[in-house]
Order: sequence, then C-alpha cells, then structure tokens
Amino acid sequence: MKDDWLDKVKWAQDGLVAAVAQETDSGRVLTVAWMNREALGKTAQTGEAHYWSRSRSKLWKKGEESGHVQKVRSIRLDCDEDAVLLEVEQIGGIACHTGRHSCFFQKFEGGKWVETEPVLKDPKVIYGKPGR
Amino acid sequence: MKDDWLDKVKWAQDGLVAAVAQETDSGRVLTVAWMNREALGKTAQTGEAHYWSRSRSKLWKKGEESGHVQKVRSIRLDCDEDAVLLEVEQIGGIACHTGRHSCFFQKFEGGKWVETEPVLKDPKVIYGKPGR
Repeated sequence: MKDDWLDKVKWAQDGLVAAVAQETDSGRVLTVAWMNREALGKTAQTGEAHYWSRSRSKLWKKGEESGHVQKVRSIRLDCDEDAVLLEVEQIGGIACHTGRHSCFFQKFEGGKWVETEPVLKDPKVIYGKPGR
Repeated sequence: MKDDWLDKVKWAQDGLVAAVAQETDSGRVLTVAWMNREALGKTAQTGEAHYWSRSRSKLWKKGEESGHVQKVRSIRLDCDEDAVLLEVEQIGGIACHTGRHSCFFQKFEGGKWVETEPVLKDPKVIYGKPGR
C-alpha cells in the first residue's frame, strides 16, 4: 500500500496526533491515545489498533500484553487533519488497563470526579502484574 | 464551585488536554479539540463547551460565532486523567466549521481519504465569511 495518505495527516511537532477509539456496537468512546505515522500505518495495514505510548516512548499494539486487541472497522480523519477516529471491535470487552470497559470511567458529578464503571477483571489477572 | 477537581487533570506541559465531544442522541463523535484549565472550568460552570484554540492561542466558546453551541450533558475523565469526554447536545446539528455534522468526515477507503458527509450549510452563510 502506498502511504501518500499518511502525508495528509498534520502530525504535531512531536510527531503525534490524538486517536479516539469508539466501539462499533455500543457507540461507547473507549480510549483516547496517540499515534505517530508508524502507528497509523500499522493500524491500517494490520486492521488492529497501534498507538504511540508517550510514557514509554514506544510503538504499542493495543492488547499486546492483555490480549484486549482493538479490531479496526474504520479510520476517520477530522477537518483539521490532526485527530483520528477509529471504529473498533474491542476484544474481551475491556479497553482500560484498570480492567474496565472504557477508560472514561470518571464522571464529573457534584463538583468532583466519581467512578462510575465496575472493574470487570482484575488487572493482576489481565497482566499477571499491575500496570498496563 | 471549588476547583480542586481541576487539579486531578494531568495538564500537559503546554497546559492542555484532548477533549472529545460525543453527541448524546446519535452517539456520533463530533469533534476533538483542546482544553486548558480555564476552558474545562468554564465548560462545567456554564454547561456549554469551551476549548482552547491552539491556532489562535485563545479561549474559545464553541459556537460563539456560528451559534453552534455544544450543550454539555456530562463530563468524563479517562484513566490517565489526560483526556476529557463530553456528552453534548449539538445546537444546529452542525459541529464542523465546514458546515458538516461531524468533523470526522474523511474516511480511509481504498488507500485514500474519502469525504463521506454532506455539507449541511455553507460556511459563508454560517459565519458571514470563510473560516471557523
């Protein structure tokens, strides 16, 4: 596949754009992560979401440790060409490294953040150890 | 309202976090924009989405020129506390400065980006002049 299409994306100075993963059936927004050119290229090539980990400074296939892969159904780009929207099937039904369905489990209520989603699986079980 | 809750957000070095606006009825992801502390504070205080414009380096109430205000139904924070998800009612049904419903109107198909959504209203009519 030619990669001219990757030139259309307005990579920021750090080489990244924001990438939103939305679950295809539920419509839930699962994750916001970051992509560099390689991550978006690999996502399109393999049909599985790849991101750039800012904390670990490395390319990262979503689910590479947990098995919670995101199968990509569509890739969209916004008007400014600096944000990507993935429509995904979330394998295992767990997108978050905390063991929750979505990463957006903290809701602003009554002047504070309240946890609104259950942990579906203990991260220690998912990863064999704490962490992502 | 006390603003301790704003301290929980992990503002990046540039003082910003990514903010996703999702339409409450359709579930469509409409926009990805940026918020600084003031933008998120004003969003919570007024119930209308405020962002930080990186291109114009100014606080910006969504719809301040177009009338296409985003009425905020909920505010969520992700596990890393560096991304915000708004559930919004999109006034006018147009989120994008190009006059489309969603900003994510470019879809990756057959190795290139294809425009998939109609312009609902000419930006010249929305703004009286080209631009956001």
